[in-house]
Amino acid sequence: MSSGKRVNIGIVGLGYWGPNLVRNFSEVSNCYVAMACDSDEGRLKPIKRRYPYVEVTTRYEDLVSSKDIDAIAIATPVVSHYELAKYALEKGKHVLVEKPLCANVKEAEDLMKISQSQGKILMVDHTFLYTGSVRKAKELISRGEIGELYYFDSVRINLGLFRPDVNVIWDLAPHDISIAQYLMKEEPVSVSVLGRDFSNNKIACIAYMTLRYKSGIIAHIHVSWLSPVKIRRIIIGGSKKMIIYDDVEPTEKIKVYDSGIEFDYDKENPLQPTYRLGDINLPRLGQREALLVEAEHFVDCILKGEKPLTDAAFGLAIVKVLEAGDISLKEGGREVKL
Amino acid sequence: MSSGKRVNIGIVGLGYWGPNLVRNFSEVSNCYVAMACDSDEGRLKPIKRRYPYVEVTTRYEDLVSSKDIDAIAIATPVVSHYELAKYALEKGKHVLVEKPLCANVKEAEDLMKISQSQGKILMVDHTFLYTGSVRKAKELISRGEIGELYYFDSVRINLGLFRPDVNVIWDLAPHDISIAQYLMKEEPVSVSVLGRDFSNNKIACIAYMTLRYKSGIIAHIHVSWLSPVKIRRIIIGGSKKMIIYDDVEPTEKIKVYDSGIEFDYDKENPLQPTYRLGDINLPRLGQREALLVEAEHFVDCILKGEKPLTDAAFGLAIVKVLEAGDISLKEGGREVKL
Amino acid sequence: MSSGKRVNIGIVGLGYWGPNLVRNFSEVSNCYVAMACDSDEGRLKPIKRRYPYVEVTTRYEDLVSSKDIDAIAIATPVVSHYELAKYALEKGKHVLVEKPLCANVKEAEDLMKISQSQGKILMVDHTFLYTGSVRKAKELISRGEIGELYYFDSVRINLGLFRPDVNVIWDLAPHDISIAQYLMKEEPVSVSVLGRDFSNNKIACIAYMTLRYKSGIIAHIHVSWLSPVKIRRIIIGGSKKMIIYDDVEPTEKIKVYDSGIEFDYDKENPLQPTYRLGDINLPRLGQREALLVEAEHFVDCILKGEKPLTDAAFGLAIVKVLEAGDISLKEGGREVKL
Amino acid sequence: MSSGKRVNIGIVGLGYWGPNLVRNFSEVSNCYVAMACDSDEGRLKPIKRRYPYVEVTTRYEDLVSSKDIDAIAIATPVVSHYELAKYALEKGKHVLVEKPLCANVKEAEDLMKISQSQGKILMVDHTFLYTGSVRKAKELISRGEIGELYYFDSVRINLGLFRPDVNVIWDLAPHDISIAQYLMKEEPVSVSVLGRDFSNNKIACIAYMTLRYKSGIIAHIHVSWLSPVKIRRIIIGGSKKMIIYDDVEPTEKIKVYDSGIEFDYDKENPLQPTYRLGDINLPRLGQREALLVEAEHFVDCILKGEKPLTDAAFGLAIVKVLEAGDISLKEGGREVKL
Repeated sequence: MSSGKRVNIGIVGLGYWGPNLVRNFSEVSNCYVAMACDSDEGRLKPIKRRYPYVEVTTRYEDLVSSKDIDAIAIATPVVSHYELAKYALEKGKHVLVEKPLCANVKEAEDLMKISQSQGKILMVDHTFLYTGSVRKAKELISRGEIGELYYFDSVRINLGLFRPDVNVIWDLAPHDISIAQYLMKEEPVSVSVLGRDFSNNKIACIAYMTLRYKSGIIAHIHVSWLSPVKIRRIIIGGSKKMIIYDDVEPTEKIKVYDSGIEFDYDKENPLQPTYRLGDINLPRLGQREALLVEAEHFVDCILKGEKPLTDAAFGLAIVKVLEAGDISLKEGGREVKL
Repeated sequence: MSSGKRVNIGIVGLGYWGPNLVRNFSEVSNCYVAMACDSDEGRLKPIKRRYPYVEVTTRYEDLVSSKDIDAIAIATPVVSHYELAKYALEKGKHVLVEKPLCANVKEAEDLMKISQSQGKILMVDHTFLYTGSVRKAKELISRGEIGELYYFDSVRINLGLFRPDVNVIWDLAPHDISIAQYLMKEEPVSVSVLGRDFSNNKIACIAYMTLRYKSGIIAHIHVSWLSPVKIRRIIIGGSKKMIIYDDVEPTEKIKVYDSGIEFDYDKENPLQPTYRLGDINLPRLGQREALLVEAEHFVDCILKGEKPLTDAAFGLAIVKVLEAGDISLKEGGREVKL
Repeated sequence: MSSGKRVNIGIVGLGYWGPNLVRNFSEVSNCYVAMACDSDEGRLKPIKRRYPYVEVTTRYEDLVSSKDIDAIAIATPVVSHYELAKYALEKGKHVLVEKPLCANVKEAEDLMKISQSQGKILMVDHTFLYTGSVRKAKELISRGEIGELYYFDSVRINLGLFRPDVNVIWDLAPHDISIAQYLMKEEPVSVSVLGRDFSNNKIACIAYMTLRYKSGIIAHIHVSWLSPVKIRRIIIGGSKKMIIYDDVEPTEKIKVYDSGIEFDYDKENPLQPTYRLGDINLPRLGQREALLVEAEHFVDCILKGEKPLTDAAFGLAIVKVLEAGDISLKEGGREVKL
Repeated sequence: MSSGKRVNIGIVGLGYWGPNLVRNFSEVSNCYVAMACDSDEGRLKPIKRRYPYVEVTTRYEDLVSSKDIDAIAIATPVVSHYELAKYALEKGKHVLVEKPLCANVKEAEDLMKISQSQGKILMVDHTFLYTGSVRKAKELISRGEIGELYYFDSVRINLGLFRPDVNVIWDLAPHDISIAQYLMKEEPVSVSVLGRDFSNNKIACIAYMTLRYKSGIIAHIHVSWLSPVKIRRIIIGGSKKMIIYDDVEPTEKIKVYDSGIEFDYDKENPLQPTYRLGDINLPRLGQREALLVEAEHFVDCILKGEKPLTDAAFGLAIVKVLEAGDISLKEGGREVKL
């Protein structure tokens, strides 16, 4: 076990996302990528070639039983998250798990309990919360510039890979649900999902999710694997200003509109709002790679014993929404209380 | 009454849309704008100044009782459509009424019956169906280029004028509902609407409408008066190609993507679709003003005794969706059968 | 002659631009459109129909000899500007003439002298100087926000109408030359033009114009009638900030970049500049139609006896650049001193 | 020396571009990255860490004297290209050198001769010629779809790094000059360059280059390190169609406009062209990384003894334009014959 001044990390799952974890944790000071694991031996070779000092293995047991490893990052299919994370936590490892935390609420609650009883960090890889764009939106909302939040509207569509294991909600919506959860002070009270599949496999590839909040805010999330164009745009409407976060833009991702509606209670018809158009501002955003910021945060929380931003409780809340969303989807879009 | 070789038209309602009707009917050959009417005398002056030959009046009775007038175009608030159209039809006039046809299904059915018993044309001003863009989309779908339709997704949002008389669905969604109805061979079987208002007047200014069809198609329509940016974009997904109709683009409004998903039933996993990317084509579109095309169509139908594209039955179907949408909106988004 | 409290105006030339003058001067208070003139009788009819109170004529003499007319606006082909303006000024009329002022420097100087000796206003219709966009750019430069100006780069290209009377420089570049002249405190010292024609008529339809200034600023203007896309974009680089003015954007026309290069003279290599990236601001712009603002300015200057922004001296400077540009064009792009 | 069935390559210069060469040559079959060299030892470490099998050295002699190495790729500052390439060729190595080939025409001619006398390949890394976009443009022009070429207009501007060794022309314009040379059948007959520097170091950071061709084509290239926005757009006008190549677009880089001007010699005024607007097509482009395509081409030419697309003669022609461009720049934009 490390002295507490450096975190030795092992990474499991070297498909699409895992190599990004290897690359970014390699660049975190106070961190050492000690081991990488995948059941597919073919995926170990490129890692070994590029990071010759990293030990590679096809057996997950090697990671969890290694005394040199303090933390494990999991980038395997969702269905395996629970078993892998549980095993690691029980063996006294801190755990970072790719979003979503796991495949259902029961598993998520169980993992949270285990991490608490073990006194180990369980963090979920909700990467967007570590981007300069979302941080800037949070900053603007926190210091009151946007005013009271009215709505959150996200479109995240593309001609994307159809995943055989999860539907489009579990694949794409965790990004939006986590961003909404971070930006708002409240949790949704209900969720509805309308979706459509186009094959006999019954896996929805287009979905419209609506989250309702006690304050009246509506968050609407449109996700699709079947759009001819890539759109990744969130509009946040507030009583003072409005934000457009266009993630497809290479640099000008956040636009703040000093525009909105106004009620003039001295007027003849006080209930008839008027609109106001003002300047638009595109703030300079932090340019560091989000996954690096996140990897540093994970290492930092381990070394300082602090609670991560996207901890188990945060990840559990997302899984609750997804699970309820699946019920709503199956029942034709019925509003499901949370 | 005219000899049948020319249509004499009277226009009632000279607010925002009416002057456009005056201007366009003035340019239709075989048509003569004989009279214009508004209860607000101040609105008559600019019409008289620009079209000195047009007779103006504040009394609607002058139009309906004039023997020289064959047809009346109505551009007044929705709530008045029924009374004005009924009166005109009963007096033997052909009628063009601004969208939506009227304020509820009962009125619409009644108007349709009267127009039938009177043998007069009742046409609804669903202008978008007369644009080069929608015509091109229809043409592509009709000749099978798009294949089987999968979905229809429309976003029509802006920082717009809040209307005191109707909510955002009645204001903006008729455009999208009418386009969907024109492009598809089937009518929706149910509608759900989630919306939000931001004032004590309880008039929804943001709404998400979902139409479901027997074939499985979903049409989703997002309308809003409270967006910092103007977006008017419809995506139509098909089994062969996909169309993006971006009405904010000045000329390149229609993009046809030769892209989509494919199922290869000879593969190991036939249910796992793959995607295909091909060329994109931007067809040259007709550039004539839609309202002029529509005005000519109305005059033509009168002179030839033909059924207009957007006749009373067409307009009634839209009102059915809107009325059911209002019920759904009030009941928190419940799916309402049509 | 009017009492001095109202300006009676006559408009000559009712092709593309003239009807816009009629429409806008009609909306100016203290102004009355008394007469409209075109040698082509067919162009008089639509004016008479829309503005029945306006007297129409095919004889220019009717305008200049009318005692009721105080001012004449000229919207005829460039080659006729001199004769028409001279005649009007000599008959004691104030004159507004479409850009460019006339076809060569000699004519322009002559017109300026006549207007001075007659004590009548001679104003040139450089419409862009009356837009909210150019006004905002001027305001930013004037109050020092942009810092020292480094360059002015304009691209104004389109698939446009080939004009038989003037080349693309005389057609499009007056916009950019006038904007540059308004925004800068200095006049260019030389001009070079490279161009190309594509037919036996020897009329350049693509041109690159470069203006050089004593301070070192370069203004580069690319104009073309032969581009598949419409681009109207001016970039203004300064030592503190940079402006992009994109006139194709419907509303977000002006973007101010708080970015630039910096020299740090305390550094090891003080001559090696570094760059700085900051916020981007899109200021709210005035939305009034430029031609209306300009028409009001013309009427105002007449009534108050003030010098217009785009007076004869301003217009003469533009003609000087155009004339020298033609020489450069004929001589293959040689730098011609001004 | 290798058996001729595999190319062993050494790479010198591991600053910005060199690591890309290492990465791409590593992926070429029949190729082995044997050695990497940089005088700065700090740059060797990350290469060694990621490619542990690659031998690293700070001494260029190690590469040229190694009997195991067949070819050397040079990615050092321009000023050193000549010496390094000469040394390698004389030692019997094939050479790939980063664009531009070298710092002046004399050096380029000398290198070409040496490569010929040694019977070794000297290829220049004009990467853009290996992109799917430029290949598609070439294909369209070659099969006559564009018709006769009229003009080539390129804008390649950004807020970029000011380079202390070369001006903006030598840094950015080689891309455009090489693309123009590839797409056209002829070489330019003259070049003019207008530029501006903003510091005492006298290194131009904004430049407008014009190339003239015997056929009348004009190629205009605007390069800048001092633009607030990144624009990389080439417009190619032809008698039948026009191409826009927008390299900032993530995928829709090539648009083919079926638009242009037409002369109708049967008309009353045959010299007055009219314009024609047709469909726009965005062809599907090859998605392979250009540098990989290029690396394979280099290896292929060595193994098969073929002449590369961007051989020494090609690279020499680019240097001729750059050298003449520098003369023109110093003489204030004078047209310099080639």
